[in-house]
Amino acid sequence: MGNSFGQLFRVTTFGESHGGGIGVVIDGCPPKIDISQVDIQRELDRRRPGQSKITTQRQEEDRCEILSGVFDRKTLGTPIGILVRNKDARPQDYAEIATKFRPSHADFTYEAKYGIRNWQGGGRASARETIGRVAAGVVAQKVLRSFYPKIDIVAYVVLIHELSAKIDRSKVKTSDVDANIVRCPDQTAAKKMISLIEKTRAEGDSLGGVIECVVRNAPIGLGEPVFDKLEADLAKAMLSLPATKGFEIGSGFSSTRMRGSEHNDPFEMRRGKIRTSTNYSGGIQGGISNGEEIYFRVAFKPTATIAREQKTVSASREQTKLAARGRHDPCVLPRAVPMVEAMAALVLCDHSLRQRAIRFSNE
Amino acid sequence: MGNSFGQLFRVTTFGESHGGGIGVVIDGCPPKIDISQVDIQRELDRRRPGQSKITTQRQEEDRCEILSGVFDRKTLGTPIGILVRNKDARPQDYAEIATKFRPSHADFTYEAKYGIRNWQGGGRASARETIGRVAAGVVAQKVLRSFYPKIDIVAYVVLIHELSAKIDRSKVKTSDVDANIVRCPDQTAAKKMISLIEKTRAEGDSLGGVIECVVRNAPIGLGEPVFDKLEADLAKAMLSLPATKGFEIGSGFSSTRMRGSEHNDPFEMRRGKIRTSTNYSGGIQGGISNGEEIYFRVAFKPTATIAREQKTVSASREQTKLAARGRHDPCVLPRAVPMVEAMAALVLCDHSLRQRAIRFSNE
Amino acid sequence: MGNSFGQLFRVTTFGESHGGGIGVVIDGCPPKIDISQVDIQRELDRRRPGQSKITTQRQEEDRCEILSGVFDRKTLGTPIGILVRNKDARPQDYAEIATKFRPSHADFTYEAKYGIRNWQGGGRASARETIGRVAAGVVAQKVLRSFYPKIDIVAYVVLIHELSAKIDRSKVKTSDVDANIVRCPDQTAAKKMISLIEKTRAEGDSLGGVIECVVRNAPIGLGEPVFDKLEADLAKAMLSLPATKGFEIGSGFSSTRMRGSEHNDPFEMRRGKIRTSTNYSGGIQGGISNGEEIYFRVAFKPTATIAREQKTVSASREQTKLAARGRHDPCVLPRAVPMVEAMAALVLCDHSLRQRAIRFSNE
Amino acid sequence: MGNSFGQLFRVTTFGESHGGGIGVVIDGCPPKIDISQVDIQRELDRRRPGQSKITTQRQEEDRCEILSGVFDRKTLGTPIGILVRNKDARPQDYAEIATKFRPSHADFTYEAKYGIRNWQGGGRASARETIGRVAAGVVAQKVLRSFYPKIDIVAYVVLIHELSAKIDRSKVKTSDVDANIVRCPDQTAAKKMISLIEKTRAEGDSLGGVIECVVRNAPIGLGEPVFDKLEADLAKAMLSLPATKGFEIGSGFSSTRMRGSEHNDPFEMRRGKIRTSTNYSGGIQGGISNGEEIYFRVAFKPTATIAREQKTVSASREQTKLAARGRHDPCVLPRAVPMVEAMAALVLCDHSLRQRAIRFSNE
Repeated sequence: MGNSFGQLFRVTTFGESHGGGIGVVIDGCPPKIDISQVDIQRELDRRRPGQSKITTQRQEEDRCEILSGVFDRKTLGTPIGILVRNKDARPQDYAEIATKFRPSHADFTYEAKYGIRNWQGGGRASARETIGRVAAGVVAQKVLRSFYPKIDIVAYVVLIHELSAKIDRSKVKTSDVDANIVRCPDQTAAKKMISLIEKTRAEGDSLGGVIECVVRNAPIGLGEPVFDKLEADLAKAMLSLPATKGFEIGSGFSSTRMRGSEHNDPFEMRRGKIRTSTNYSGGIQGGISNGEEIYFRVAFKPTATIAREQKTVSASREQTKLAARGRHDPCVLPRAVPMVEAMAALVLCDHSLRQRAIRFSNE
Repeated sequence: MGNSFGQLFRVTTFGESHGGGIGVVIDGCPPKIDISQVDIQRELDRRRPGQSKITTQRQEEDRCEILSGVFDRKTLGTPIGILVRNKDARPQDYAEIATKFRPSHADFTYEAKYGIRNWQGGGRASARETIGRVAAGVVAQKVLRSFYPKIDIVAYVVLIHELSAKIDRSKVKTSDVDANIVRCPDQTAAKKMISLIEKTRAEGDSLGGVIECVVRNAPIGLGEPVFDKLEADLAKAMLSLPATKGFEIGSGFSSTRMRGSEHNDPFEMRRGKIRTSTNYSGGIQGGISNGEEIYFRVAFKPTATIAREQKTVSASREQTKLAARGRHDPCVLPRAVPMVEAMAALVLCDHSLRQRAIRFSNE
Repeated sequence: MGNSFGQLFRVTTFGESHGGGIGVVIDGCPPKIDISQVDIQRELDRRRPGQSKITTQRQEEDRCEILSGVFDRKTLGTPIGILVRNKDARPQDYAEIATKFRPSHADFTYEAKYGIRNWQGGGRASARETIGRVAAGVVAQKVLRSFYPKIDIVAYVVLIHELSAKIDRSKVKTSDVDANIVRCPDQTAAKKMISLIEKTRAEGDSLGGVIECVVRNAPIGLGEPVFDKLEADLAKAMLSLPATKGFEIGSGFSSTRMRGSEHNDPFEMRRGKIRTSTNYSGGIQGGISNGEEIYFRVAFKPTATIAREQKTVSASREQTKLAARGRHDPCVLPRAVPMVEAMAALVLCDHSLRQRAIRFSNE
Repeated sequence: MGNSFGQLFRVTTFGESHGGGIGVVIDGCPPKIDISQVDIQRELDRRRPGQSKITTQRQEEDRCEILSGVFDRKTLGTPIGILVRNKDARPQDYAEIATKFRPSHADFTYEAKYGIRNWQGGGRASARETIGRVAAGVVAQKVLRSFYPKIDIVAYVVLIHELSAKIDRSKVKTSDVDANIVRCPDQTAAKKMISLIEKTRAEGDSLGGVIECVVRNAPIGLGEPVFDKLEADLAKAMLSLPATKGFEIGSGFSSTRMRGSEHNDPFEMRRGKIRTSTNYSGGIQGGISNGEEIYFRVAFKPTATIAREQKTVSASREQTKLAARGRHDPCVLPRAVPMVEAMAALVLCDHSLRQRAIRFSNE
């Protein structure tokens, strides 16, 4: 009962890595929003496997179909169903993981929780599950732009292992991000990151890193204290993505080493508007957006699937060893960039609808 | 519509810093759990103002009353209402903040979102709001212990500004935490932290830091993928607390600088059980608890209220200055420790009930 | 976990007939709505015991206090807490029902479900629980009128036992309803009803009946198919009231004896608007309000508490007898009229907010 | 945002009468429940068009596919996606209703609410939408039987227009119901009903009626006061079905003409158990099941689609006339029987999970 996200713009995803398919139902989308299969496919292509030499070499087309809720390229206000078919599974590929728990994967915990698991690949815990999120994120972005035409959500890699990037958060564009295969808009750093990922893969190992996301031109007033503060819902959204280990908003963990007099964001009048001089708050104060740039960072651990042999135990509780075969991502971050953007869009879209519902009358 | 938390063990808080009172309604508490006013009061005393020389010197008794849901010291299965009265406000104390937006507070965003705010103190954005959370956390802990008698939730300060503590996470006890007023179980570090807080207060400034929380003897199987993963709900819970800027589970942001071969937690058999040799995962894999210690860290920014004069703007949109008067916390962390424990208990209790609902039959 | 109602305008009630008090928390109320204790008290007085010779003679003042969410008589957009204190209980009055299950009451089912019950009076199953609903209904009406100034919700008794009333649904006003103590706007029928209730009480027995409710000038477009159709949420709202046994919208059960050619409501243009010539639909088509009068009827069973001796069993599972002592309502309908109006207002207010969230842009 | 039903066993349906397909996602289904495509197909065949001479003659196969959540015929605890493809639409069939609002249909209200509608057939308001409900109902029944092996849910027609049936509620079986095409287990009445339906169809008109449903061997303790009382959720479930106008539990509207001394159900000991001598309560007291038979009745209006010419207005707001062409049901009740059973199963299954979550410990 944890497969839905959002209160008003509510997405429900379904599907395992193997079986009929992966999909999403979006309930609560306003009517008359332009949307087409092509819009969704474009974004799915940013997350699909096999897109570059540093992602997994599995080739999956991930072709989406809109099943309902859209008529003549416009949303109807009814639930939007979207489906991506799975390719035929080759169960023999998974014979080993049917009986051995992969370290730092979900095999053991699913088995323990449910007493059963689909051992063909990652099952529900596969990153393939995020297809539904990315598809829904496209719709959320369309809704957001219908409300706030200038809103802009951009995520990008800022760290791979020890390699960090220098990025001007206020200016970075999607075209800069997609200009290289690691999705880091610092082109110099990107080259080093790509080399490091290739080298690490050759060593049978994997890497983690940090993705930053900035939202520009978001409206003032999004966020529902005290529990559904905007940063709280963003944190949940990001920590629900596979392989994430941390979240920080604005100054984040670095704020802990600052003093109040340094960290407070003074208010000032700028072009007739109340603005802050600095933005350590990350665009959110008291759980509500204040009109400044919203920005946050998400930590991704190194991919759990590695080619090196590892110690583990079998389902029959015997000590054994395991080495991943076949194709996998040596670093999930390049493909996680659209996932982060999608989850941010879902949170902002949901909060936009919530704010529309209660906004005070003289607005 | 963001004042409820949890799906089955569902708490709804209410109340501003001024007005009739602060409270909580807990819906979904199982029947026949022992609970009394004394249990709740004990924990409220850990978060109340005026408890030591390094917290605010406001003296508030924060006496709680159980309004419903408990009969002969046992829960009835009906909603538990708990109320703490506010003391009489002295509106003249707040004349200045009625017209000026305090930097990095919620004054401006509440005004912008709702078109109105209770300018007597922090209103709903006051940390006083957490009274309801702490009270509900006590009930959650009682429920958890009725299911898992050995479960243990302990939070503690690990960093104040540049001062970090050395703590054995597996052994730390609440009595160690409460042995000093900063709630850091490393007694040597604690002394330095206390001095630094006092010195900073004297300078009219404030400090932030990091609280770590460990949950020992949690059951295997808590967490509801894919959106309500256990760490996702913990992240939301923590980021919904006032003054928080970051969350990390297990290895957290440090995982980004490790390789998969270092970071993966190998499975092994220990005393007949499947365990992991290391615990970088932080006790959660695939969003589900795996029986190891659950641990996470929360970043708190330096208190926004400082005695130093700051630049700001007024409600009438003129540039002005503001200096906090009266009494406030130079560092929120000592009082935030019980808040972190409470939110952790709410998450775990809710997920325990959710798991009970669906657990497979041969259990 | 069933003590909340509504998706966006969300009320959570708490309290047993005995203990600290009865109350409600309203989350999701828009800001800047005028509301005062006096507004709420007026409506609570319409449901309180002891208001006339045909209600229970218990005298309860049911004085309400607004604990939060309102400042200078305006809503803040934060949760509104409302509390009504219970009077001191005299436990000795309830000695008998502590050990005997009252027929057609909730004593047995609460005991079976929870393994415990507050045997001092009705506990949570007492009609006293509806105080929170009526209080919240006042706030809901205020919100509705701020959106649709001419909206009008009027409920009234149309049947007591075999005595039915003749009422012009389109014209009935609250002043007509409150013109007599049985709250039936057909003054001739009302007199007979009052006599019958008095006579029945003297015989130690009780009566049921039907309440009709009409909503005039509701907007077009409320209702969220396919599950949260407007009539579906109204049905749930009404069946959640104590002592209700049935609900029908528009033509209701009588529609089953009509043919389609008689029952269909033809569309016509009237004063430039699309209207229906007849209104068997009851103002709702396809789960969405169509701008015509919304009307429905609710069946209330005869009060379960009667003075006559009845067969029952004891908690120790022995056959025994029981006769109600003290004061009780011989017929709940007069006091149920404000409850029906309150629940209707909660449903309409919630759906108004839901519709505001998604309404299409060229509106 | 009204396309989900249930708190723990949560179904979300999607799909219009035309477009890619109709489906459902079931989230919260316990793991290890046996389920197969064949089980679901059998029940879909009971609701499909073209099954007899008194239903619409449209021939739709309504073949279902399980997309996810089931592995080796067992549920995984992950979301179960089920899809039924739509057949190719012939848009020219709908040219007329694209521009004219059908009386007592949802054309006008959808247009008014959303500003857009899929005018190819009924769109989302089509009874075709119930495919997802019926499919989910099969899964719910499987879960219920895994908890309570003897539970039995049977619905049947008790009234068509003026023709009523005599049925022994405690003994009626599904095989009796399905023994004739009108699904009335009184075989004599059934014959008359079938003749009447045929005659009415020939006259270009339609009929309504009443379906009764009985649940035998339900457990004690289901229902979550005060808002999610079992009868309240049943009422909502039934009123969310197309063409329904009323709901009554147990004695229902007839209770209003009884006195308390007649209507109360005395408790008695029977075979060592606390039972009631009569069952006017309909198996629910105080909103919680008491172990007796749960029974209720649902009123269905005469089908809105009729062959006779009717007055209406066009989308361009001109008075016009309309006569339904093609094939439609002259009476929805025979096909509505499995829908009523499905919705009852969804409510009971959801409440079973909710009760499992909180049940007291010495159970």
